[in-house]
Amino acid sequence: MISLEEYNQIRNETLDYFNRCGIVLSEQEKANIEVADFGLNRIRELGLQLITYINTEKCCAKELVLLPNQTCPEHRHPPIGHSPGKEETFRCRFGTVYLYVPGPRTSNPKAVLPSGKEETFTVWHEIILKPGEQYTLAPNTKHWFQAGDEGAVVSEFSTKSMDEHDIFTDSEISRLPVVEGK
Amino acid sequence: MISLEEYNQIRNETLDYFNRCGIVLSEQEKANIEVADFGLNRIRELGLQLITYINTEKCCAKELVLLPNQTCPEHRHPPIGHSPGKEETFRCRFGTVYLYVPGPRTSNPKAVLPSGKEETFTVWHEIILKPGEQYTLAPNTKHWFQAGDEGAVVSEFSTKSMDEHDIFTDSEISRLPVVEGK
Repeated sequence: MISLEEYNQIRNETLDYFNRCGIVLSEQEKANIEVADFGLNRIRELGLQLITYINTEKCCAKELVLLPNQTCPEHRHPPIGHSPGKEETFRCRFGTVYLYVPGPRTSNPKAVLPSGKEETFTVWHEIILKPGEQYTLAPNTKHWFQAGDEGAVVSEFSTKSMDEHDIFTDSEISRLPVVEGK
Repeated sequence: MISLEEYNQIRNETLDYFNRCGIVLSEQEKANIEVADFGLNRIRELGLQLITYINTEKCCAKELVLLPNQTCPEHRHPPIGHSPGKEETFRCRFGTVYLYVPGPRTSNPKAVLPSGKEETFTVWHEIILKPGEQYTLAPNTKHWFQAGDEGAVVSEFSTKSMDEHDIFTDSEISRLPVVEGK
């Protein structure tokens, strides 16, 4: 669980990133910034901030913010019913993103893993995304990503998002965030 | 057909809009800005500039630029094969967009129609989008839109885009742009 004080602090930092990029949000969106700590209570190391613009039966668009060196843990979006799983494109808007996917292991990868969690990161093919660069993941592909020292802002374009079905490599994770009193 | 000189001029103005919004494009994207004049040869009145980030079998993301008071003509995205037609969300990033959809006719609508084309605009329910505001269109819904005096930048999140199948109310229109020598 994230304390309300910590939620508000991280929400404000997230809004600063959006401001820096010229991304305009409605007041309602600003009030509903999602701060995901994955139940790990190490938000600045393992976490993700986001706003969902739209999520219909067919497609979804979000903006993601990563704090400096913050990591979104390894996960995949499995097939659900008639869907083969979520297809997603990440487009970097600000900062640098180190994205890891299945494939030949990159030597000397840039990401530095949060201590004690090394075993929960299993794919090591590195894709580096700078502003204006993007990468598309096929459904059900394991992936994780980490921001560089400046943090990062990333647009995500995808099929329907059903975060509650995401499968994380780290069995200690619960995806849906819980904020004290929210 | 657009002359190469006019294409380059409008492309440069489009890039200025992206710069103003902090939207970063790759060099390849900058070189491939689409300038659609719909075969009408009145680009500053009836036209649209865009870049397509991604367009898979399932989803699509574009950035649209409208020059001051420029109009995207009325059209719909019809069912194709197993698809019910393109579902799309427009999110305003900069400027003002006057979007028109089926529904009760708005009195004193803001848009000013290009002369001689009045009969080719048949839906008049006005949605005004300012930065941070968005609207989602169901498949096969007639719509058209016009920018305010400053022009506009609009993100489009949608299912697969198949522009060549769009159905325009104006029978003089051909959707796919032709640029001299390109």
